[in-house]
Amino acid sequence: LGPHSEASEDVSIRLSDLAARLGGSLEGDGDLLITGIAGLEDATAGDISFCSDRRYRQFLATTKASAVIIGRNLDLPAGCRADLAIVRVENPYLAMGGTIGLLEPRYRPEPGVHETAVIAAGVELGKGVHVGARAVIGEDARVGARSSIGAGCVIASGVTMGSDCALYPNVTLYDGVVLGDRVIVHSGTVLGADGFGYAQHGGVHVKIPQVGGVVIEDDVEIGANSCVDRATLGVTRIGQGTKIDNMVQIGHNCQIGSHTIVCGQVGLSGTTKVGSGVMLGGQVGAAGHLTIGDGARVAGGTGVTNTVAAGVTVAGYPHQEISRWRRVNAALRRLPELVRRVSRLESTLGLGGEEDE
Amino acid sequence: LGPHSEASEDVSIRLSDLAARLGGSLEGDGDLLITGIAGLEDATAGDISFCSDRRYRQFLATTKASAVIIGRNLDLPAGCRADLAIVRVENPYLAMGGTIGLLEPRYRPEPGVHETAVIAAGVELGKGVHVGARAVIGEDARVGARSSIGAGCVIASGVTMGSDCALYPNVTLYDGVVLGDRVIVHSGTVLGADGFGYAQHGGVHVKIPQVGGVVIEDDVEIGANSCVDRATLGVTRIGQGTKIDNMVQIGHNCQIGSHTIVCGQVGLSGTTKVGSGVMLGGQVGAAGHLTIGDGARVAGGTGVTNTVAAGVTVAGYPHQEISRWRRVNAALRRLPELVRRVSRLESTLGLGGEEDE
Amino acid sequence: LGPHSEASEDVSIRLSDLAARLGGSLEGDGDLLITGIAGLEDATAGDISFCSDRRYRQFLATTKASAVIIGRNLDLPAGCRADLAIVRVENPYLAMGGTIGLLEPRYRPEPGVHETAVIAAGVELGKGVHVGARAVIGEDARVGARSSIGAGCVIASGVTMGSDCALYPNVTLYDGVVLGDRVIVHSGTVLGADGFGYAQHGGVHVKIPQVGGVVIEDDVEIGANSCVDRATLGVTRIGQGTKIDNMVQIGHNCQIGSHTIVCGQVGLSGTTKVGSGVMLGGQVGAAGHLTIGDGARVAGGTGVTNTVAAGVTVAGYPHQEISRWRRVNAALRRLPELVRRVSRLESTLGLGGEEDE
Repeated sequence: LGPHSEASEDVSIRLSDLAARLGGSLEGDGDLLITGIAGLEDATAGDISFCSDRRYRQFLATTKASAVIIGRNLDLPAGCRADLAIVRVENPYLAMGGTIGLLEPRYRPEPGVHETAVIAAGVELGKGVHVGARAVIGEDARVGARSSIGAGCVIASGVTMGSDCALYPNVTLYDGVVLGDRVIVHSGTVLGADGFGYAQHGGVHVKIPQVGGVVIEDDVEIGANSCVDRATLGVTRIGQGTKIDNMVQIGHNCQIGSHTIVCGQVGLSGTTKVGSGVMLGGQVGAAGHLTIGDGARVAGGTGVTNTVAAGVTVAGYPHQEISRWRRVNAALRRLPELVRRVSRLESTLGLGGEEDE
Repeated sequence: LGPHSEASEDVSIRLSDLAARLGGSLEGDGDLLITGIAGLEDATAGDISFCSDRRYRQFLATTKASAVIIGRNLDLPAGCRADLAIVRVENPYLAMGGTIGLLEPRYRPEPGVHETAVIAAGVELGKGVHVGARAVIGEDARVGARSSIGAGCVIASGVTMGSDCALYPNVTLYDGVVLGDRVIVHSGTVLGADGFGYAQHGGVHVKIPQVGGVVIEDDVEIGANSCVDRATLGVTRIGQGTKIDNMVQIGHNCQIGSHTIVCGQVGLSGTTKVGSGVMLGGQVGAAGHLTIGDGARVAGGTGVTNTVAAGVTVAGYPHQEISRWRRVNAALRRLPELVRRVSRLESTLGLGGEEDE
Repeated sequence: LGPHSEASEDVSIRLSDLAARLGGSLEGDGDLLITGIAGLEDATAGDISFCSDRRYRQFLATTKASAVIIGRNLDLPAGCRADLAIVRVENPYLAMGGTIGLLEPRYRPEPGVHETAVIAAGVELGKGVHVGARAVIGEDARVGARSSIGAGCVIASGVTMGSDCALYPNVTLYDGVVLGDRVIVHSGTVLGADGFGYAQHGGVHVKIPQVGGVVIEDDVEIGANSCVDRATLGVTRIGQGTKIDNMVQIGHNCQIGSHTIVCGQVGLSGTTKVGSGVMLGGQVGAAGHLTIGDGARVAGGTGVTNTVAAGVTVAGYPHQEISRWRRVNAALRRLPELVRRVSRLESTLGLGGEEDE
């Protein structure tokens, strides 16, 4: 039904082998057989766990895991079990991901086209493609090798999809959308719907036909129930390696660079340009016709109203540089006291002034 | 096609019987035959209406309803019709809901599996299950008695669903999602998509496999086009009786308690913990790795950036206790005047100072 | 598969004919054959381009387009090519839309019902209707002439749809939803899901049955992954010619007037009344049980907490008149300096006072 589904069972690995594969240094019994991975609080005997955030360091003393993956320099808290094996690595979060991949390999759907799928004339399917039940693929669409199309997806005519893509069930791609290789799109997401463009004419909104395209480059992942609108003219582009969370709205003619992170419920108005290596926090909004420079970071909830320079971190609405925003905000939280101080000054000077509140 | 669809017609009830079923006290003609229910402004003869909010009390004087449901102590406005029958109850809104249930019983889809549904091997369907047209159910999924699965739903392999659930059309459940009894999920909602987790490695975002689950407990309702992501490890959990509106984003590993209300377009980042009996207003955002305590109330649009204690009400961004936020906000709205007052003080003291604006 | 899909090719038009059709005045070679339309930076020989925003005026000097559409009074920048033909019109954006319509006529899906569509008993389909693959239409639904229903759409029983409507793939209409003529609904959108209404009773949220309807009037367009909830009683109504962007949430019993613009990710709580000719910017939230008057404009990100008068422009949270909001905001951004000024005043007067930060 989709690229998820049953992980194979009974996978296990010797701890010393695991440490070697992670490039980690081992402290403890390398012969331990690791059969699962779980959080520090949930792990039981046979499991490996991890600590990638100092905030959770205390749980190392109480975890029932057989082994833990931690940073090179993390100091263990008092009270850790003597038989708790330790694997030290540079990046525990990365190592955890690798360990999950070893212990719980992802199900890959079987190659083949379900008998209830509807494949139009002129469609080219690469080797090893999976097409799920009731998926619909329109005229002249091309699907690269080993890509999977989940149940209920609708791929309109002229779509081009690279190899090793995974579309989860009920994704919709409008006509002519282009996906690179290894693109992942989660359920409910719509790529290529019309941009929101109308010309005002005599009090009526006249629709501007949206005839541009959408290009999603290699290694992009897009979460569930998100939208990337097609361009009015030209293309809306999501750059290589960029990761987009759920319920994100990307307006027509936006250009997003490579390796950028776009968190949940972000909304980019039409013709927003976002650089590479950018981080947009949850629920950020951008006003459109502006640029967010390479490497910029935008705090969750920020309203971006004009250009953000490369490399800076911003917050607030309208956005400002974050250290400035923090100072303003700290002062704001003490504003009632400031009002009192001004009233005291006025009364000291016998300025009757305005009464406060 | 779904649990909605045609209400049966020609239902009527004597007003005295209705009052008795609602546990209300009747003032007026108990022999009135009530044949419909409508708002105060829309109601016509034969209808019963209601007033659950003092703001709408004035419409009691002009309504054409034959009867109205009101609170025990509501004083009628001047000019009410002499023949307007009154049913007084403790909770008029609750009584209105009960009355709708009596007068417009909800259509329940016929038991049976539509011939175009695709049911994989190993699926267990309980007694009286409805599966709509083109629904797809994956290997080994279990559907409890009397549950309905709307047209176009995709239920991936290994899903477990209790009894008396209602999935509206085009819902997507990823593999292994668990629903309790009497869970309602509206169209377009996606449960179990991958959490948004990547490890940074050399400027590239490496995907952390998301192999945990989603558990939706009994009596939860989830609106349309919402998302609950699967956990990285462990489960994302929505507690018993919690109600979630449309377009809500629940990140991986969130834990929501029981009988909590989550309004539209709320976004909870990964690993947010929300207690029981909480109220989250519309468009609230939470930063993740924090706790919102039992009984807390969060005003619409609030940005929750760290822990909220049980029982408190918060607002603003970053959030603060609401009475404090109101004071800050009242002072903020008079800030231009405060600036003028400070300028006057400076000029009184001959402090040339900074010029304002 | 949907109303998009392959534009016909090899369309061309003489520039003098195009200028005449647009009601524009021509400067340059009327015999030019225009074969395409593109943005100023992307256009090549044979293309017509346009400049509807002074910000992009500079690109007139470097465009490779053969002709451009500009405003009546726009002054050309220095350095424009001598052979660049100019078409001057009242409204270049409107003219651009018309030109796209001429050069890239929208694909209209072939009339006919796909063999995999599921059409229930009692359905009435008008002349020239298109029903895509795997679409499902419930009992007694009526679809007007020339309307198209994309692949995977689910139209529940009793839906009424006018003529010349376009539903893109995977739209869901709950039972009894009413669409006028020429309504466009993009993929993933859900119309008619239950309003979010519960009565509190003993710590439990008791569902209020939602038995009202949804009416979408003529010429409305609704973007992708949006929701319009059905009314509790009565109807939720979207007025004629109103345009709604992606991921917009319209709560139960909302009333929106005609020719209103609702940008992406707006959320309207239940029983919000929005007038005609209103503009709601992106991510606006409204608290419900309030009115936004005719012609009002609400800036992106605004939190509307009570009634907005007709014709005014508001911003902020809670919203205020925008010029007032701008003054408050300008003062807010200088708040740290104001705190320092107050501290200086205090020290001048020997008032030890509170120390700042």
